[in-house]
Amino acid sequence: MSEKTYLVAGMTCAHCVNAVTTEVGAVAGVETVHVELASGQVRVTGDGYSDADIRAAVDEAGYELTNT
Amino acid sequence: MSEKTYLVAGMTCAHCVNAVTTEVGAVAGVETVHVELASGQVRVTGDGYSDADIRAAVDEAGYELTNT
Repeated sequence: MSEKTYLVAGMTCAHCVNAVTTEVGAVAGVETVHVELASGQVRVTGDGYSDADIRAAVDEAGYELTNT
Repeated sequence: MSEKTYLVAGMTCAHCVNAVTTEVGAVAGVETVHVELASGQVRVTGDGYSDADIRAAVDEAGYELTNT
C-alpha cells in the first residue's frame, strides 16, 4: 500500500473537509483519506488509483488539486 | 407575514450556507430563509417564531448569531 500527499485549494471549513474526504474516499483503490484544513494537504493511502482519479474526485467535490 | 434580517458569523462556504438555511428553515413558523454568504445576512420570513428560536437554530448549525 502506498501513501501520497496532494494539495487542495479552496477548503474553508469542516464541511469542505467532509466533502473532499467523502469524494476521494470513494475512489476505487483508496484505503484512507486524511484532510488537513489549515494546509490543504490530503494524504491518501491505497493502491491502484491514479492521480487523475484523485483530481477528478477533488473536482467533483468542488475544489482544485494544486499539485501533481 | 413578517420579515427580519439576522447576522450570522462564521459562514465561509456554500456548505455553511446550506447548513444554516436547513436549520433555520426547520424552525416552526419560518416560511423562507435567504442566506447571503458574503455579508452573513440571513433574511427570514414567517410568523410565530422568536429570535431565540433563530439563535438556537443557527447555533445548532454550528454558527453564531451576532445581532439581536
